[in-house]
Amino acid sequence: MEAELQELKRRLLEVDDLESAASLLSWDQTTYMPPGGAAARGRQLATLGELAHQKLVDPEIGRLLDALRPHQEALPPDSDDASLIRVTRRDYEKAIKIPPSFMAQLSRHTAASYQAWTVARPADDFAAMRPYLETTVELSRQMADFFPGYEHIADPLIDFADEGLTAATVRALFSDLREQLVPIARAITGQPPADDTSLRQHFPEGQQWAFGLDAIRRFGYDFNRGRQDKTHHPFTTKFSLGDVRITTRVAEHDLREGLFATLHEAGHALYEQGIRGDLEGTPLARGTSSGVHESQSRLWENLVGRSRPFWTFFYPRLQATFPEQLGAVPLDTFYRAINKVERSLIRVEADEVTYNLHVMLRFDFELALLEGKLAVRDLPEAWRERFQADLGITPPDDRDGVLQDIHWYGGPVGGAFQGYTLGNVMGAQFFATALDARPEIAGEIEAGRLDTLRAWLTERVYQHGRKFTTAELLQRVTGGPLRIEPYIAYLRRKYGELYRL
Amino acid sequence: MEAELQELKRRLLEVDDLESAASLLSWDQTTYMPPGGAAARGRQLATLGELAHQKLVDPEIGRLLDALRPHQEALPPDSDDASLIRVTRRDYEKAIKIPPSFMAQLSRHTAASYQAWTVARPADDFAAMRPYLETTVELSRQMADFFPGYEHIADPLIDFADEGLTAATVRALFSDLREQLVPIARAITGQPPADDTSLRQHFPEGQQWAFGLDAIRRFGYDFNRGRQDKTHHPFTTKFSLGDVRITTRVAEHDLREGLFATLHEAGHALYEQGIRGDLEGTPLARGTSSGVHESQSRLWENLVGRSRPFWTFFYPRLQATFPEQLGAVPLDTFYRAINKVERSLIRVEADEVTYNLHVMLRFDFELALLEGKLAVRDLPEAWRERFQADLGITPPDDRDGVLQDIHWYGGPVGGAFQGYTLGNVMGAQFFATALDARPEIAGEIEAGRLDTLRAWLTERVYQHGRKFTTAELLQRVTGGPLRIEPYIAYLRRKYGELYRL
Repeated sequence: MEAELQELKRRLLEVDDLESAASLLSWDQTTYMPPGGAAARGRQLATLGELAHQKLVDPEIGRLLDALRPHQEALPPDSDDASLIRVTRRDYEKAIKIPPSFMAQLSRHTAASYQAWTVARPADDFAAMRPYLETTVELSRQMADFFPGYEHIADPLIDFADEGLTAATVRALFSDLREQLVPIARAITGQPPADDTSLRQHFPEGQQWAFGLDAIRRFGYDFNRGRQDKTHHPFTTKFSLGDVRITTRVAEHDLREGLFATLHEAGHALYEQGIRGDLEGTPLARGTSSGVHESQSRLWENLVGRSRPFWTFFYPRLQATFPEQLGAVPLDTFYRAINKVERSLIRVEADEVTYNLHVMLRFDFELALLEGKLAVRDLPEAWRERFQADLGITPPDDRDGVLQDIHWYGGPVGGAFQGYTLGNVMGAQFFATALDARPEIAGEIEAGRLDTLRAWLTERVYQHGRKFTTAELLQRVTGGPLRIEPYIAYLRRKYGELYRL
Repeated sequence: MEAELQELKRRLLEVDDLESAASLLSWDQTTYMPPGGAAARGRQLATLGELAHQKLVDPEIGRLLDALRPHQEALPPDSDDASLIRVTRRDYEKAIKIPPSFMAQLSRHTAASYQAWTVARPADDFAAMRPYLETTVELSRQMADFFPGYEHIADPLIDFADEGLTAATVRALFSDLREQLVPIARAITGQPPADDTSLRQHFPEGQQWAFGLDAIRRFGYDFNRGRQDKTHHPFTTKFSLGDVRITTRVAEHDLREGLFATLHEAGHALYEQGIRGDLEGTPLARGTSSGVHESQSRLWENLVGRSRPFWTFFYPRLQATFPEQLGAVPLDTFYRAINKVERSLIRVEADEVTYNLHVMLRFDFELALLEGKLAVRDLPEAWRERFQADLGITPPDDRDGVLQDIHWYGGPVGGAFQGYTLGNVMGAQFFATALDARPEIAGEIEAGRLDTLRAWLTERVYQHGRKFTTAELLQRVTGGPLRIEPYIAYLRRKYGELYRL
């Protein structure tokens, strides 16, 4: 069995090398690549993606997995080797259903679409993106159809991002959540809005950048194994466990945009940097699911990064960085400003209370597009209507409406958004468990020390990478299944106090 | 034939995509990669290199080349298709002699060696590099031995860089050149040295950077299809004809280091950016040889960038950039300073007259290492002795001695250096031909216009990529073979005037 296992690992390492190379090509495409490089880059990404896929679906991998089944069954299920064989088999069985030529076509198309979006979004030009998005929807449908037997056409796509979930389960969860959230949002938006003028001053990029780096260094983000660069749309990417990079954007007229993007991406990166080194180069060396990944970005961005204890320590440092802008602004005013709840246009800048409404409308549109109940040409209008109904405002343009997120323009439609809300819910559940287990965490955050929290998360969540499914991980860490109560309790407590509800 | 040709091109494109991806991984390794990424990066580069090699040596390529032979023979030899088939066959016949596993081993080793060198050079620690270099020499010998029948063990390695040349032909050329150069160098170094204190002031990096970019923009370097970043060792790299990047380093205490590195690399990049777009993705879409490539970097760096006409235009701009440092320094003093001939330690900073002596000693050491006449452990001492004999000074340490160049620490030993001197010789030959053909060039340079020169070089040299061998290109462009006379005449004229010989 040892020989088969080694051969499997060797082959998986080769797949990982190709995928990591493709990730670097994508990172470069959004950070430093000159415009003239775009056409060839799309082709190169398609070639690497196709090769990685070919190597993963090689029948020899199937043979090795079959041969290794008795070995797997003899091992404890939570052992590294049993987990590797089990997770690889799941990946393999999905991958063999998708023809390599389709993967290449999808990769070429999404690279071209992404490039067009970087021009069309600032130009507020949905018409330019319409043919791309139509093809994307069509390709997404084809992708789902490689997995016949689904209940809803989005199910296979949701399963890629959040294994084990379906359109029906997500819909049910979102419905429960919506029932709780809408009254809270309504109560708050009926109050006088928080004053956030202090955040809308001029904050020079260089100082913002330095402050953000200092904050995430205290989170425990390891710059020896990472770096931060600038992009249109912030993201985290990994080329190996020793090289986990984040990107951010900076707005000089609003302190929130860059700072909270940095904290958010650092949360993703802490997860990846925290994976055990001996899982390197295997399919286990990444996050469990989109939802669990978002639980960490949202935990560090919001539960830590928008909390009063965090700013008790960091606010004096921020004031020292921007004495003219913030020297006379009290901590309480700042704290209220960064937690201002409002009807806003942009998902990634939305407050914690309304954020999920942004996600739910996107999720519903994904289902409708895939079902064929909504045509791409009708999407901008549908967006405006639903936005007015859910958020009480109408986007003045498509740039800050339907064009705002990269997802549909740089990848398939379906499964792209539900992870954000799942992340909010799970993040609160993990954080409540952490605070119960290690009550000293709250006091440490006030002193600018995040080590206990990060160590606890690393021990319970990060180190395992993808060994456990989302449901297994929740069970192991919190002792139960996904529950919305900790999240709702957190929102009620925090915003109840802030808005004296 | 059309189907075979299309299939050949498709396969070559895939090889090119893998090689371009590897180039990006290398570029990132030297520009932005955090230290923690090094181990995996070496492995990823090895995987990509191995795959590219496997795909190039696929027997199907051999079959297609055989099938295409009648097609090739029916076409004019200088047609694109005939050239593609001919050049691919040469590459293929070389590549099939090297086992893929050897390529992977070499790639892994040179990546590790490069990483070690980035630490060992600043630490002046040759002992740390000795085991790496010993392995490199051994692997270089093995590489040569895949090509039995050579006269000298370096011949196959020289042929990789400068096809058609051998140790014997390079030695003969270097001997002739040396005979002419040494008396010139001796006559100059017997004179009072030029005063270069004006260049050794404090020049802030940001302004140096901006000035360099402005200069190469006027060369015609297209920033829409390229960019400049910082590295330890400047280089040019290409990910597609639409993405040709250069790197440089900047010394704030010496204006020469960064500026002339930028001009040098821009010369390489103009060559690559000037290749005809329809050669994209084929083995023709690169420079003909190491020597011809260097002819362009040295032409733009020296024949243009260290000339009086060039600085007649650019010096007032440089003074405006650095008014405190250069406002009171006359053009003539500056021109003498940037052309100061001296016994110096560093090849890339050496003046045009002594530069070739630096190259020749490296070339001789490569031959001696490969022949086994010189052991790696004796190299630092041999370096010091030969340096004293040839240049009249002894390096005080290995950092600025045998450790100074990346070549032996990031690639094979053999064939790494002769191209620089060949480039000096050919650059002068091309430039003299250009000035004969278009006498207006000299006057245009004085007005800061480089278009005619660049257009002439693009038309005669760049656009063809690798369609012609070095010898064929020289014949087509200059009407004859390689000749040292234009280079010697240029040096005598320029330095005769500067040093009143």
